[in-house]
Amino acid sequence: MEEILSNQIMTIKHSIEGAPNEDDFEVLTTNISTSLIKPGSNSVLVKCLQLSMDPYQLNRMKSFSTSQNSVAVAFKLVPGKLIDGYGVGKVVASGHPNFQKDDLITGLLNWALYVVVEDLNLLQKLLDPTEFPLSYHLGILRVSGLTAYAGLFKVGKPKKGERIFVSTASGSIGSLVGQYAKLFGCYVVGCAGSTEKVAILQEKLGFDGAFNYKEESDLKLALQRYFQEGIDIYFDNVGGEMLEAAVANMNPFGRVVACGVMSQYTDPTKRKGGPDMIDIIYKRITIQGYLGNDYSDEHNFAEFVSTTSSYLKAGQMQVLEDIHVGIENIPSAFVGLFRGRNIGKTIVKIADD
Amino acid sequence: MEEILSNQIMTIKHSIEGAPNEDDFEVLTTNISTSLIKPGSNSVLVKCLQLSMDPYQLNRMKSFSTSQNSVAVAFKLVPGKLIDGYGVGKVVASGHPNFQKDDLITGLLNWALYVVVEDLNLLQKLLDPTEFPLSYHLGILRVSGLTAYAGLFKVGKPKKGERIFVSTASGSIGSLVGQYAKLFGCYVVGCAGSTEKVAILQEKLGFDGAFNYKEESDLKLALQRYFQEGIDIYFDNVGGEMLEAAVANMNPFGRVVACGVMSQYTDPTKRKGGPDMIDIIYKRITIQGYLGNDYSDEHNFAEFVSTTSSYLKAGQMQVLEDIHVGIENIPSAFVGLFRGRNIGKTIVKIADD
Repeated sequence: MEEILSNQIMTIKHSIEGAPNEDDFEVLTTNISTSLIKPGSNSVLVKCLQLSMDPYQLNRMKSFSTSQNSVAVAFKLVPGKLIDGYGVGKVVASGHPNFQKDDLITGLLNWALYVVVEDLNLLQKLLDPTEFPLSYHLGILRVSGLTAYAGLFKVGKPKKGERIFVSTASGSIGSLVGQYAKLFGCYVVGCAGSTEKVAILQEKLGFDGAFNYKEESDLKLALQRYFQEGIDIYFDNVGGEMLEAAVANMNPFGRVVACGVMSQYTDPTKRKGGPDMIDIIYKRITIQGYLGNDYSDEHNFAEFVSTTSSYLKAGQMQVLEDIHVGIENIPSAFVGLFRGRNIGKTIVKIADD
Repeated sequence: MEEILSNQIMTIKHSIEGAPNEDDFEVLTTNISTSLIKPGSNSVLVKCLQLSMDPYQLNRMKSFSTSQNSVAVAFKLVPGKLIDGYGVGKVVASGHPNFQKDDLITGLLNWALYVVVEDLNLLQKLLDPTEFPLSYHLGILRVSGLTAYAGLFKVGKPKKGERIFVSTASGSIGSLVGQYAKLFGCYVVGCAGSTEKVAILQEKLGFDGAFNYKEESDLKLALQRYFQEGIDIYFDNVGGEMLEAAVANMNPFGRVVACGVMSQYTDPTKRKGGPDMIDIIYKRITIQGYLGNDYSDEHNFAEFVSTTSSYLKAGQMQVLEDIHVGIENIPSAFVGLFRGRNIGKTIVKIADD
C-alpha cells in the first residue's frame, strides 16, 4: 500500500570555502513514496534516527577540494543535493529479504528524515540493538572507534610503556585513542582547547597529563614539559604547528599517525608550520596517513569490535557524546565541530524511533 | 722505530650558519709520532688516500644543530678540531694484528693527511682492493650506495612497474637510486639543476625522463607532465617545495623516502612549503625518514654489496664521480655540494698511495 512521506533534507546552499556558518545550510522539503521500494529489488527505505557529524565532511563542501581532486575517498558534495553521512536508522520498507520493516541498521545514510538506500552493502543490521545505546553504533563501535583503534594499533604500533601524545584529545577520535593507549599500558598526554576539556581528559578519561594549547605560547616547550623522555607516537588530528612541535619532541623511530588536519580544514591556504624534515630523517620518524575504513575488513573489524565491546562491558572506557536534537540543528552541530564546541562524538538525533 | 710525520688537518674556523664558504675553513699543521701506535693496542695510524664529501656534514658545522640537539646521529663539529668523515686509506702502523702496514682500509677517518684510529670497528679492510677503483669504496660500494639501495628497496619497497621520482637525481645518492630503480623495472624520472645534469640522467643513466627544476615555474605542473599516472615513490633529497609538489602528484598508498633536505641545509630558518597533510591522509601516504647506516648489519650489507657488485661487473651501472685533488681543495669541493657544482659523488684525493 503506497504511502507518501514528507521528507526533509539538509543541504548546502553553496560551496563553503572557509569556516562554515549556520546559514551556509538549508532544509529542503520533498516527498518520498514507499512505492519506490519494489519487492525483489535492492532498495530499502530508512527512517534516520541519529546522524554522525564529522569534520572531514567540510572538505567535501569546498568548491575544489584536495580529496575530490585526486582521490575518490570523499566525493565532492553538490549544493542543493543530498549529503551522505553515517547514521543509525530504522527500516520503513524493504525490497530485499535481508532487511525487514523495523530492523535497526547503521551505515551510510543521508542528512535527511528518510533515505532510500539502493546499495545494500552500505547498510549493516544491528544484531543486538539493546546491548549498547544506539549512538554507540555511530561512534565508538563504528567509524570513530575503528579510526581510533586502527590508527593507534595498526599504524602507530605502540609498545607498552611508550609515550603518546594525542591532539584534539577530547574529540570523538582523540578521546578513544587516549583511552585505548592507557588501557594498553602507555603514558598518554592530550591537548585540547578549553579548561573544561582538559579537566575531562585528566579526571574522567585518566590521561597522564593534558594541557590547553590555547594557553601555551610555545608548543614545543609545552610538549617538553610533558615529555621529558620524548614522544614515541603522535596521534595527529590537527597538523600545522602542533605537528611541527611534536616532531621536534619526538624520539628516534617515532611515529606520527596522521588522522586529521583540523588546523587546515577551515583555511587550507594558510598552512602554518609543518614537520622539520631534517628531524624526520635523523630521528627516522615515520608519518603515515590512513583512513579508518582501510581497516574495515572482517578480520580487523572483528578484532576492534571485540576489544571495544569488552572494555565497554567492563566499564573501562568512557564514551563522550555531544548530542543535538532535530534535523534543523544539524548546521549548529556541524559548525560547532570547527569552533571547538563539541566534547566527544557529535551526533544529531533526528527521531526517537 | 719512531717516525715523526708532518700532518695537516682541515677544520672549520667557526660555526657555519648559512651556506658555507671556502674561507670558513683552514688547514692546521701538526705532528704525529708513530710511537703513538703501541704494539698490542687497538690503535692504527692511517694515511688518508681519498675522502668523501657529504652534505650532511654541514648540519654538524652549525652552532646549534637539530641533530646535535636531540639525537646522537651526527655529533656537532667543533671549530679548530678534527672533522671525521668517510675515507679510504692505507695503514702506516698498527698496534693490532687485524691490520698490517700497507693494508688498504675504508671507514671513518678524518679530513687530514694522517689519522690515528682507536676504535677498530670504524675500519674495514678492503679484501680485494684491485677489483674496483678505490673511490668506489667511498661511494657506490659503501655509504652512498647503501643509502640509495636501502632507501629504495627497504624503505620505498617498490613493485615492478611503479613510478618513481628522484630529486637531486645527478647527485651521489640520487644517481644510484635512479639506476637501481630502472634495473628493478620501474619508471624513473629525476630532476636536477642544470641542462648538463639532465642530459646525463637521460643519456648516460637511462632515466625515463628528467627535468631542470630551475626552469620550471610550477613544480606541481612539471611533475604532472612526467607523471600522468601519478607518483608511487618519491625519493626525497631536498624537502620543501619539491616535497610538497611530489605529494600533490602522488598516488594512493604512495611512499616518500626521506633521505635529505638540501633545500634546508643552508637556510634552516627559511622553510618553504611542505607536504599537505590532507593529501597525506586521504592518499594514505607514508613519509619515512631513514639513514643508510640503519641497514649496515651483515645481512643487509651483504645483499646490497652482492647486488651492486654484480651490476658493476656486468657494466649495468654507471658511476658518476666529481674528483678533486689535494687536502687544500676540500673547502671548494665541499662548498660545491651546496652550489650544485658536483655531478655524482664528490671525492677529494689526498694522496695517490
